[in-house]
Amino acid sequence: MKKHNVFDEAASLTEFWSQRVLQESNGTLLKIAKGIDSTRWHSHEDQDETFLVLSGRLVVQLRGGDIELVPGDLFTVPRGVEHCPVAPEEARFMILGSTVTSNAAGGKPEWSYTQDAGNTPDEA
Amino acid sequence: MKKHNVFDEAASLTEFWSQRVLQESNGTLLKIAKGIDSTRWHSHEDQDETFLVLSGRLVVQLRGGDIELVPGDLFTVPRGVEHCPVAPEEARFMILGSTVTSNAAGGKPEWSYTQDAGNTPDEA
Repeated sequence: MKKHNVFDEAASLTEFWSQRVLQESNGTLLKIAKGIDSTRWHSHEDQDETFLVLSGRLVVQLRGGDIELVPGDLFTVPRGVEHCPVAPEEARFMILGSTVTSNAAGGKPEWSYTQDAGNTPDEA
Repeated sequence: MKKHNVFDEAASLTEFWSQRVLQESNGTLLKIAKGIDSTRWHSHEDQDETFLVLSGRLVVQLRGGDIELVPGDLFTVPRGVEHCPVAPEEARFMILGSTVTSNAAGGKPEWSYTQDAGNTPDEA
């Protein structure tokens, strides 16, 4: 039993679009991540994916339109629903889901795989 | 698919220690609540219970010691572990769990059952 401060944890992340698991609750992983620029369109067939924005702005693009999220906004993408999160400016957020989804199938962009603290998108 | 702002939702609560369900994600209910004064000692045999403090200060008393939570602090009480949340000042927070636990078995104090907007503990 350990507490974590989500703001402090998010501030210490070095890689974009890479999830860090803080805790687990009833089979749901309580994760944090930061993003900038765009991920890729994808869906998760095995899980709902919930976003809670901590700072910045996160736009969850859906085929039916965009959902714009600011700090405190909570939004759940149901399983199977195509989405493409975009951060017009750096966004820090919690993600809830049953597994870590920061991988190619989860829309993680290629440029974000470098482990350097300073990694940024080529096009940014 | 609807977004909610957890700060705005928590600010609109009228009853203390009464959970409002905002969304559901992989069987976990994403709830908000506000508290003041003390709940009662209890445990949940069927679920872990996660707290994420939005404002104020929430002290999760455990038999082994207190866990003090300030805004951004995330803490999970594992199933079966006795706890007694106390809010020395009004605290607003998210609670994650598989059911709504704001009832007598969940430690909800008797004074908090009135639906009046101004309900407060007798001893406060």
